[in-house]
Amino acid sequence: MKKIIVQKFGGTSVADTNKIKHVADVIIKEKQNGNDVVVVVSAMGHTTDHLLKLAHEINAAPSERELDMLLSTGECVSMSLLTMALQSKGYDAISYNASQIGIITENVHTKARIVDIKTDKLKKSLEEGKIIVIAGFQGVTPEGEITTLGRGGSDTSAVAIASALGAERCDIYTDVEGVYTTDPRIVPNASKLDEISYEEMLELAHAGANVLHPRSVETAKQYSMPLRVRSTFKYDDKGTLILGVDKMEIYKPVAGVAQDLSQVRVVVCDIPDTPGEAATLFSSLAKENISVDMIIQSYARKVSQTNDIAFTINKEDLEKTEEIVNKVKDKLHAGDVSFDDNIAKISIVGAGMIDRPGIASTMFQTLADAGINIRMISTSEIKISCLINKEDSQKAVKALHKVFNLGCDTIAEVKGTLPDV
Amino acid sequence: MKKIIVQKFGGTSVADTNKIKHVADVIIKEKQNGNDVVVVVSAMGHTTDHLLKLAHEINAAPSERELDMLLSTGECVSMSLLTMALQSKGYDAISYNASQIGIITENVHTKARIVDIKTDKLKKSLEEGKIIVIAGFQGVTPEGEITTLGRGGSDTSAVAIASALGAERCDIYTDVEGVYTTDPRIVPNASKLDEISYEEMLELAHAGANVLHPRSVETAKQYSMPLRVRSTFKYDDKGTLILGVDKMEIYKPVAGVAQDLSQVRVVVCDIPDTPGEAATLFSSLAKENISVDMIIQSYARKVSQTNDIAFTINKEDLEKTEEIVNKVKDKLHAGDVSFDDNIAKISIVGAGMIDRPGIASTMFQTLADAGINIRMISTSEIKISCLINKEDSQKAVKALHKVFNLGCDTIAEVKGTLPDV
Repeated sequence: MKKIIVQKFGGTSVADTNKIKHVADVIIKEKQNGNDVVVVVSAMGHTTDHLLKLAHEINAAPSERELDMLLSTGECVSMSLLTMALQSKGYDAISYNASQIGIITENVHTKARIVDIKTDKLKKSLEEGKIIVIAGFQGVTPEGEITTLGRGGSDTSAVAIASALGAERCDIYTDVEGVYTTDPRIVPNASKLDEISYEEMLELAHAGANVLHPRSVETAKQYSMPLRVRSTFKYDDKGTLILGVDKMEIYKPVAGVAQDLSQVRVVVCDIPDTPGEAATLFSSLAKENISVDMIIQSYARKVSQTNDIAFTINKEDLEKTEEIVNKVKDKLHAGDVSFDDNIAKISIVGAGMIDRPGIASTMFQTLADAGINIRMISTSEIKISCLINKEDSQKAVKALHKVFNLGCDTIAEVKGTLPDV
Repeated sequence: MKKIIVQKFGGTSVADTNKIKHVADVIIKEKQNGNDVVVVVSAMGHTTDHLLKLAHEINAAPSERELDMLLSTGECVSMSLLTMALQSKGYDAISYNASQIGIITENVHTKARIVDIKTDKLKKSLEEGKIIVIAGFQGVTPEGEITTLGRGGSDTSAVAIASALGAERCDIYTDVEGVYTTDPRIVPNASKLDEISYEEMLELAHAGANVLHPRSVETAKQYSMPLRVRSTFKYDDKGTLILGVDKMEIYKPVAGVAQDLSQVRVVVCDIPDTPGEAATLFSSLAKENISVDMIIQSYARKVSQTNDIAFTINKEDLEKTEEIVNKVKDKLHAGDVSFDDNIAKISIVGAGMIDRPGIASTMFQTLADAGINIRMISTSEIKISCLINKEDSQKAVKALHKVFNLGCDTIAEVKGTLPDV
């Protein structure tokens, strides 16, 4: 039996008809390697933004069901155009949307999770020698309701389909050449990583590296599906392979440095020091689906019997969080609440730091030597994050990238410009 | 039980978000009349043309299956946006595509015929008090393949859904106010018809009146579903009601005059006068799905034992017809073939002409008096068509409209300009 390779192409890779023709060539190269090829595709360029704009012109708060009906059309357009491109180059190809295949999700709109993927149609089409092109980002409930998978949805579709088909590998084609030790826009000699573990990639993704959505990495890890991040426009470049840590040779304790400028620090002062108060706060946030990242609770003050809780959230959730925290504050008889978005989260990530002591202290010392004040710290087995002032962010990334010896001799090609700090 | 009204809105009625909001108001008025409302919608404005352009940039001859996958997205966009508009005005509404409902068609792409419509979901949603918005133009095969219904497809969807639901009436909303006695761009005092029979409407539609596609009228006739053609932008105007001739009062022998400038006249000379020769020609054309309209065969010439056959086809089929006719010509050892597109087909249509003699002679005499040469004639029970030179077309329409006393005292509002002759 032939090996199955799943390829996923993002919106920038299929932004116009010329790019779609180029993508067809990339697919055909993989087919010519003797593999069966299954392709997952996102909506063309700014299609999704355009559809969202139309929706908001009509309804300030459109229903999530109808949003899913609307947005899922974007992938159906790119999928059929890409199939036509393959056919025009003489290859037998067929497109399927999620309803046709049976990419079954929970009955939740705009952020559904995949629960099952039917493979009958896919296997039959592969047996017939066809290249299959599938609409990413979308699913269907057992009742036939159309759902979408939320952010990074097409990556997740691709990994889930690869797993369901027992594919050899899932290639995520994008406009960068792979995963870098840090953002090349900050550190021009950042190195492209040949390999990285699921765990490290997850931490980097959570820490602000935008190359892959954490959900797709989690799914890949769960099914041990090797993932390759590679450039649509440089087929010969092998990109970065993401796989189980047990299969990797680890040379350096730190694999990468990431910055995240999208966090807001929330401080709730003078919370009475009685059991369950913190739980009330965080369960209220969890109920609204707000992810809290770093959390610090101060020691209780002896005199007032109160303490302060500081935590970080994503900017996107700021409005909802303000509302919830102000409500909970009154209930808890807590003191002032403050919000600070002038912060950056700087993280170092590496599976190799598990059995090498001193990594954390090197990080703290490096930041101190650069005159950078650390405002919060959080750690996991393979990650250390420090919250610092936003204006120190690039200085911190450069210093850490250097001290952990992550640079290479070549200068990475830089796409786009850095956002203003 | 409430009465069900099916409303269909075409592409110009939902061309932008403001128009979609207006359409929502029209729907709500019908709902406020105490009726259950099911809406069928076309793609926004030029969406279909845009998608076709993309397809042809990629593949000069895109596969029909993938074209259907592509084009069916257009209606899904307008359907969800219209549903959002209804929701934003406080009405409970839900959209369904053809796959979700089960608008079952034959397994033919780009021009499938509807074979069945499942009504379970629709009835349930109506019971819940919802306004239903359905994507027109599309269907699904029992195997889950997406199909489209071809020209006039959304009208056909609407009529078929109305019939399946046992609706009270199917309203076709468009940018004209109804069916006119002739094109108001030619005859400014053309009258809007209050009523017209299915049969007359069919003949008018075949004779070049573009207001409704013949297929939708055929379906309405088959199920005796009353159809109303009315303006999206003038809700209080009742438009034209199309219904069975048995329910109509017929005052005038002729209901309308139509011109069709899209025909090409084909003449095949010197066909040997042996049995089956004409059949060979027309069966070859039928095999390629080319509709032949008027046919005249000359008497066989005594000396040469040959005759000439003249017929008309649609301009769109010219290329294919040339190919076939030239092939058949050689096989039949026929003589010259000529093609003439400098022609117009002028038709008068009226259920009232059945039992009133003299209508045909009045038509021929009127054209003769106007100095117009008749090149071919064809008749049905309720229609007489004459082929004339294109430059005489408007003169003919004006003269016939006058002689059959079809004008009214008011001048119709004119949309667009006439095509150059």
